[in-house]
Amino acid sequence: MSDEAPLLDTLRSICGDAAVLTGGDMAAYATDWRDMFHGKPLCVVRPAETAEVAQCVAACAETGTAIVPQGGNTGLAGGATPDDSGTQVIVALDRMTAIRRIDPVGMTIEVEAGAILQTVKDAAGDENRLLPISLAAEGSARIGGLIATNAGGVDVLRYGMTRGLVLGLEVVLPDGQILSRLRHLRKDNAGYDLKQLFIGTEGTLGIVTAAVLRLVPQPRHRATALIAVPDIASAIALYARAQDEVGEALSAFELISGAGLDLVAEHMGQTAPVTADWVLLIEAGSSLPSLREAAEKLLETAFEEGWATDGVLAESEAQADALWQLRESLTEAEGKAGGAIKHDISVPITGIAAFLQEAGNMLRAVAPEAKFNVFGHLGDGNLHYNVMNVTREDAAKVNAAVHDVVAAHHGSISAEHGLGQYRVAEWARLASQPEHDLTRRIKDALDPDGLINPGKVVPKRG
Amino acid sequence: MSDEAPLLDTLRSICGDAAVLTGGDMAAYATDWRDMFHGKPLCVVRPAETAEVAQCVAACAETGTAIVPQGGNTGLAGGATPDDSGTQVIVALDRMTAIRRIDPVGMTIEVEAGAILQTVKDAAGDENRLLPISLAAEGSARIGGLIATNAGGVDVLRYGMTRGLVLGLEVVLPDGQILSRLRHLRKDNAGYDLKQLFIGTEGTLGIVTAAVLRLVPQPRHRATALIAVPDIASAIALYARAQDEVGEALSAFELISGAGLDLVAEHMGQTAPVTADWVLLIEAGSSLPSLREAAEKLLETAFEEGWATDGVLAESEAQADALWQLRESLTEAEGKAGGAIKHDISVPITGIAAFLQEAGNMLRAVAPEAKFNVFGHLGDGNLHYNVMNVTREDAAKVNAAVHDVVAAHHGSISAEHGLGQYRVAEWARLASQPEHDLTRRIKDALDPDGLINPGKVVPKRG
Repeated sequence: MSDEAPLLDTLRSICGDAAVLTGGDMAAYATDWRDMFHGKPLCVVRPAETAEVAQCVAACAETGTAIVPQGGNTGLAGGATPDDSGTQVIVALDRMTAIRRIDPVGMTIEVEAGAILQTVKDAAGDENRLLPISLAAEGSARIGGLIATNAGGVDVLRYGMTRGLVLGLEVVLPDGQILSRLRHLRKDNAGYDLKQLFIGTEGTLGIVTAAVLRLVPQPRHRATALIAVPDIASAIALYARAQDEVGEALSAFELISGAGLDLVAEHMGQTAPVTADWVLLIEAGSSLPSLREAAEKLLETAFEEGWATDGVLAESEAQADALWQLRESLTEAEGKAGGAIKHDISVPITGIAAFLQEAGNMLRAVAPEAKFNVFGHLGDGNLHYNVMNVTREDAAKVNAAVHDVVAAHHGSISAEHGLGQYRVAEWARLASQPEHDLTRRIKDALDPDGLINPGKVVPKRG
Repeated sequence: MSDEAPLLDTLRSICGDAAVLTGGDMAAYATDWRDMFHGKPLCVVRPAETAEVAQCVAACAETGTAIVPQGGNTGLAGGATPDDSGTQVIVALDRMTAIRRIDPVGMTIEVEAGAILQTVKDAAGDENRLLPISLAAEGSARIGGLIATNAGGVDVLRYGMTRGLVLGLEVVLPDGQILSRLRHLRKDNAGYDLKQLFIGTEGTLGIVTAAVLRLVPQPRHRATALIAVPDIASAIALYARAQDEVGEALSAFELISGAGLDLVAEHMGQTAPVTADWVLLIEAGSSLPSLREAAEKLLETAFEEGWATDGVLAESEAQADALWQLRESLTEAEGKAGGAIKHDISVPITGIAAFLQEAGNMLRAVAPEAKFNVFGHLGDGNLHYNVMNVTREDAAKVNAAVHDVVAAHHGSISAEHGLGQYRVAEWARLASQPEHDLTRRIKDALDPDGLINPGKVVPKRG
């Protein structure tokens, strides 16, 4: 028996023996899916309901044991991976998967934190409603993690980040209290909006156990196009015109580099119908039937103005899906080609061209052999600026170079992936003193002993 | 000279003599516009820039002087009115009105806190963009106050509350530090989203001095209808169908009682083209031309299904504006008829009919002579449930009766107006212990001496 046995026994008595994993059974939980972060937890506990989560947290608090909350373990910044001390307890929400209630008229859905995004989207779809969070990991990502990381994805342009979809939240606080505000309300200005504290804070202030999410109408019509543009300036001009012509119907405006399409062709066997140094994947959706007409008119304008050199407007759902498949294969193709040092940056949209120029110049000095796989949500100013053909040893240098250019453009070094453990040091380097102070005050106010997801998001005490 | 003279001199030295008001010059700032809350401030200081705000706050902090931030002074809950102690300093943002920058491509606008909503909307409109905050006070309300109260209004159904429009914020903290995150970014997940602390917290954690707001495309087509419905259930059925048929284009779904229209006819001389116990004012807007066709089809369906008994679809902008005029005159007509005890409640939309039934029953017992002016944002589940023909002495009894029914429906006692000083006691009565604890912890973490807007939102220490 190890020294930790008393806590393990307590957790077993709360959740049942089978719900507490140790040794080799922890493997899938101890490492992130990209295999970048390797933790060594004391144990993994898998509560079946909120009351059990609360009791586990209280038991850990009493023994001064640190907790790492974990959802689908699909994060990209190591936010759900424990350290290697062998002392931290992973609280996995993967048994709490109930869809408690769906209201298609009030357009809300109440789910437990462990529900898988795709399952929740399917339930909403059955009622002709949409949960507008779309990302590559949606078959594995869980609602609690999506909320804790304020997940982005390809729907953000139209529907905003996950934060804006959270109407109600149930959270276990670091002392084991349950804060329950599972209200199906679209408007609630009574008192501090406490749920904001737990959205995007990556489990460092409490553990999300359930949520009420806002649904939107399911668009009936869809228009999807892949368009080759001569340069970034043309892409931006087309974006501005699209806002005028299709307005609220515009739902995705994605940028893909020709180099990225080459990777997808080489490693995934998928060939794009158009190619160029830069292509755009644009989608619009609407309940109104004149969408396609507006999309055709927009494409005509793009050719007339010289903003597009080639392009295809999907003629069928299957063709639209095939265009999206190119976009969604970029990360896997990159992996097969040897991987990359990833950046998840955003800058003001009008500064994208200058950013690409300056970051490219900077990297030619720092890492002359570098190749690039650049893609992302151009309409949000968010690029995945991935640098290939550099060694892991150069990662810190490359990161700093890219982030310095981001900072000069008043951008963000994490537009959608969060800080986790991966980007804390870079955040700390670039944040202002009041940002440091306020972050620390909030963390201390809610988690004075620093036991909930330590080392993530909030820099350790200096 | 009073005992407070040294602070007054300090404030004068920071902002100039003319920027510090005392005596009768303070009248417009000391009372709210509805003349419900009457304060007696030490002085009013009107800084011209953020650095002056910071210096004023630091000077007050040093002398242990409480501050009341004030924008357009159009709030409905007394959140910007000082107490009557003669010791509090009003920091008025009404000289900081600059529109610093507008980016029609990135669809952002940067403004100072004292900019008037209508002015900012006009600036956005000049660039074919929309700032989607619409409320009766938009000619006087200022951006800082709108952010501090997370303002609602008639655009919420489609565009959400003000919170979702705030991309960047500059805030003076209670110790005089300036937190500046004026980023023109649509996505930023780097670290805690500190700006959330200052949105909807009514100036109790700091003073908003500037903001970057998100703009949206200006819809080109508009459809506006006034529809008589036989009952609330029909209104809800029509709402659900509207989400299917016009989807994202639906921008307002307002409920007005026949009694309210009678008040508007009697006191404002405006006659509605249709009338019934309940009427709906519905509006949709889109960049796509087939909107009107969809709206006509929806109305046809409403008549076929028996959800509508009468109705008019506006044939011109002027007619649409006239329909909105009816809605916007309700509050003034109510005032002319002797005023009301107002409630700003929300419940899940599907519970609205039951809420009205139960609240009506409850009030017949508590205040048998009561008459009602009920209207509001039905699509958001938010009603202004205003009770007329009762004495001020009965207000507490009436409030408690209505709020108890709200609580039974898991609703909110302040959907959009905030708590200010008016609803703090009722919030305190109905909130859970973890909500009390967490609210207090946040307040103490940011404002340990309780000097920023004391007595608002957060109950005083027990």
